[in-house]
Amino acid sequence: MTVVSDVRETIAALRREVCALHEQLTRYQLVVWTAGNVSARVPGHDLLVIKPSGVDYDALTAESMVVCDLHGRVVEGEHAPSSDTEAQAYVYRHLAGVGGVVHTHSPYSVAWAARGEPIPCVTTMCADEFGGEIPIGPFAVIGDDSIGRGIVDTLRHSRSPAVLMRNHGVFTVGPTAKAAVKAAVMCEDVARSVHLARQLGEPVPIEQHHVDALYDRYQNVYGQR
Amino acid sequence: MTVVSDVRETIAALRREVCALHEQLTRYQLVVWTAGNVSARVPGHDLLVIKPSGVDYDALTAESMVVCDLHGRVVEGEHAPSSDTEAQAYVYRHLAGVGGVVHTHSPYSVAWAARGEPIPCVTTMCADEFGGEIPIGPFAVIGDDSIGRGIVDTLRHSRSPAVLMRNHGVFTVGPTAKAAVKAAVMCEDVARSVHLARQLGEPVPIEQHHVDALYDRYQNVYGQR
Amino acid sequence: MTVVSDVRETIAALRREVCALHEQLTRYQLVVWTAGNVSARVPGHDLLVIKPSGVDYDALTAESMVVCDLHGRVVEGEHAPSSDTEAQAYVYRHLAGVGGVVHTHSPYSVAWAARGEPIPCVTTMCADEFGGEIPIGPFAVIGDDSIGRGIVDTLRHSRSPAVLMRNHGVFTVGPTAKAAVKAAVMCEDVARSVHLARQLGEPVPIEQHHVDALYDRYQNVYGQR
Amino acid sequence: MTVVSDVRETIAALRREVCALHEQLTRYQLVVWTAGNVSARVPGHDLLVIKPSGVDYDALTAESMVVCDLHGRVVEGEHAPSSDTEAQAYVYRHLAGVGGVVHTHSPYSVAWAARGEPIPCVTTMCADEFGGEIPIGPFAVIGDDSIGRGIVDTLRHSRSPAVLMRNHGVFTVGPTAKAAVKAAVMCEDVARSVHLARQLGEPVPIEQHHVDALYDRYQNVYGQR
Repeated sequence: MTVVSDVRETIAALRREVCALHEQLTRYQLVVWTAGNVSARVPGHDLLVIKPSGVDYDALTAESMVVCDLHGRVVEGEHAPSSDTEAQAYVYRHLAGVGGVVHTHSPYSVAWAARGEPIPCVTTMCADEFGGEIPIGPFAVIGDDSIGRGIVDTLRHSRSPAVLMRNHGVFTVGPTAKAAVKAAVMCEDVARSVHLARQLGEPVPIEQHHVDALYDRYQNVYGQR
Repeated sequence: MTVVSDVRETIAALRREVCALHEQLTRYQLVVWTAGNVSARVPGHDLLVIKPSGVDYDALTAESMVVCDLHGRVVEGEHAPSSDTEAQAYVYRHLAGVGGVVHTHSPYSVAWAARGEPIPCVTTMCADEFGGEIPIGPFAVIGDDSIGRGIVDTLRHSRSPAVLMRNHGVFTVGPTAKAAVKAAVMCEDVARSVHLARQLGEPVPIEQHHVDALYDRYQNVYGQR
Repeated sequence: MTVVSDVRETIAALRREVCALHEQLTRYQLVVWTAGNVSARVPGHDLLVIKPSGVDYDALTAESMVVCDLHGRVVEGEHAPSSDTEAQAYVYRHLAGVGGVVHTHSPYSVAWAARGEPIPCVTTMCADEFGGEIPIGPFAVIGDDSIGRGIVDTLRHSRSPAVLMRNHGVFTVGPTAKAAVKAAVMCEDVARSVHLARQLGEPVPIEQHHVDALYDRYQNVYGQR
Repeated sequence: MTVVSDVRETIAALRREVCALHEQLTRYQLVVWTAGNVSARVPGHDLLVIKPSGVDYDALTAESMVVCDLHGRVVEGEHAPSSDTEAQAYVYRHLAGVGGVVHTHSPYSVAWAARGEPIPCVTTMCADEFGGEIPIGPFAVIGDDSIGRGIVDTLRHSRSPAVLMRNHGVFTVGPTAKAAVKAAVMCEDVARSVHLARQLGEPVPIEQHHVDALYDRYQNVYGQR
């Protein structure tokens, strides 16, 4: 099987973008060694671009990214794809609006995940980006559809672009790979701030109508139009 | 409306300074992604210079800074200004001595803010820079004068150049933008040290007359004259 | 005693590799000042290559690495070898499959070690890399075989490539020096995540059959073949 | 008063060394903004070389260092010296073996200092470098001999090269400025590890005869001879 020629340029651009976005994972210390990855959907095609498995972040190149179909089978690339490819492919198959997926084991998020505890929405940043609590997905073993199904089932009942998979780590989604990376960065920041707040007492809740107003403004007004 | 020509140079210099000061926010890890900003008053004019909204710190240039009037309306610049512009404009309108304002969601400060708890003055650094506890401002929604009013009302009753806005983050002020950045750096450092101290017991209080003496010396003797 | 000529190239390559791997210790903040080191076995020879004692990481060169026999005696090199050389030589003498050893005082790992408490296996990363809890070795004084014996006796009863020596720090092993460095990075990451999880409650256990399945997959399927 | 010509070269070398050592304070995140400094005694002369007050670390040059007599009066230099100069001068006057002094507000050390609690010796690194607990000095106000006297009185009864001044920060000493910087780096590392250990239980004590043996070996055998 080969990739048809009219998507060559799109894929080449996504290879560069996905490769470069991994720099944000190391910059914000969301990952150690090779434990974390970014993928992007190839728009209009049943394809995704993802990090190769077990390759050092410093050694990543656009060429080493792997193109897979939405069942995780390699279509183009000389490396084995991330061991999370099947889970991410499942997400792309079942959530049409998702253009990017990120997976990390960032430490404060993992702490909440290890306890199986959602992160309560007690900061304006959490309301802005996640629209409420950051939810917990099930414990799921690697090697079949369990992780992908756990992500999709959890995110379908939430405004949050992040899910904490129990005892595991974070998966985030977005309309683009960059948006998913942003959600991963924000998730760890919120996980840390709320962890710190809880260590010395109870955070003050934010009323639901304020959460809704903050979420609405941030999604629709913030940034450049 | 255009900017009159005799302030051109001042504004050009402030654009460069405000742009460069954002490097301190990332260096000291006070901000993630695009969540934090610096502004400066244009001395003698009802104008301020501020970061554009939602633009990556690595992509900031002096040219991308936005000039607004003191009601937050854009006067010069091709980008939408920070979504905190109205709050900061309110501060400049009501506190004549303020030449710079900084906003961050730095994690230890947010932890105190999420509990609605002021940071007690138990270190000499806190006495030096803040002259007492770092106070808590009200919960305030974005989109009207609430945040600006909360900042001003809180700082008017305090020697502190920093206020922790409840469930939100930090706003700091100073005679210059650099002084406000310094207060933001110091605020997070104090928030962290006192957090750590409190985790394993109770810090020893500092007597008020010592706080006063430390504050007086630091404000009047420290540094180069 | 001199090194026979047919291992010259192997030793030269290991000097470069061992030297370069110290960059990972500083990058992941596993060490301060000169407190931590990497060594590698010279395959097929009773020799090892190790960091010189008390030399700054920035000043390390391939030439400054020290070649010792497996009793810790210097065979080649102008510097005194790491004060941990005897302990690491003991490990190479008694664990035939070990090709690299790393020692650090990384802070979260030291915290568990200071309490003499193994790190429970409550995250998938811990199951993947360590195959169960990260065990505690005995308190052992430097200057004889105590540390080496403590490491070997502990690791023989565990799948873990890392041992927390009580009140001291971490020793990790691997088939190569790079694998041992990876284990050191992962050990601190797990030590931190589980520390954070435990601060606010109890992590959910992972059932033993899931730990076994995760370990098996990670050791046999993950990465490039 | 002028500096006699035969110490010109010594002073020039110390200016470069003291300036460069500040990079270690920022590298290990022991300081924020301008809050911390290094000084060195000019051997054989009643002089010291110290950081200028309130100057950014990035802007430090050998030329901007300030030469003072051992009462803190400026002998050479265009800047005001660190506001800690009098305290450090007191240390040089009263502890003949001290060739370098460092002051920081490093966060974990400040946490112990804010509670007025010495750091117990429960790690081999603490035994190696500090020979026992890291002691607490008195609360002392700036502006007279109180801080210097507090440092000297505390260190005279301890093998530790570091003292935690109550509610304030760390002062370390050493035979050279580099040794004092090393002690400052190690002090924060120990403060952090023991803080983390204590958060989840009680560290196992190290018996005094082991502390003594570790200290003796580290002071006399470690490193290059």
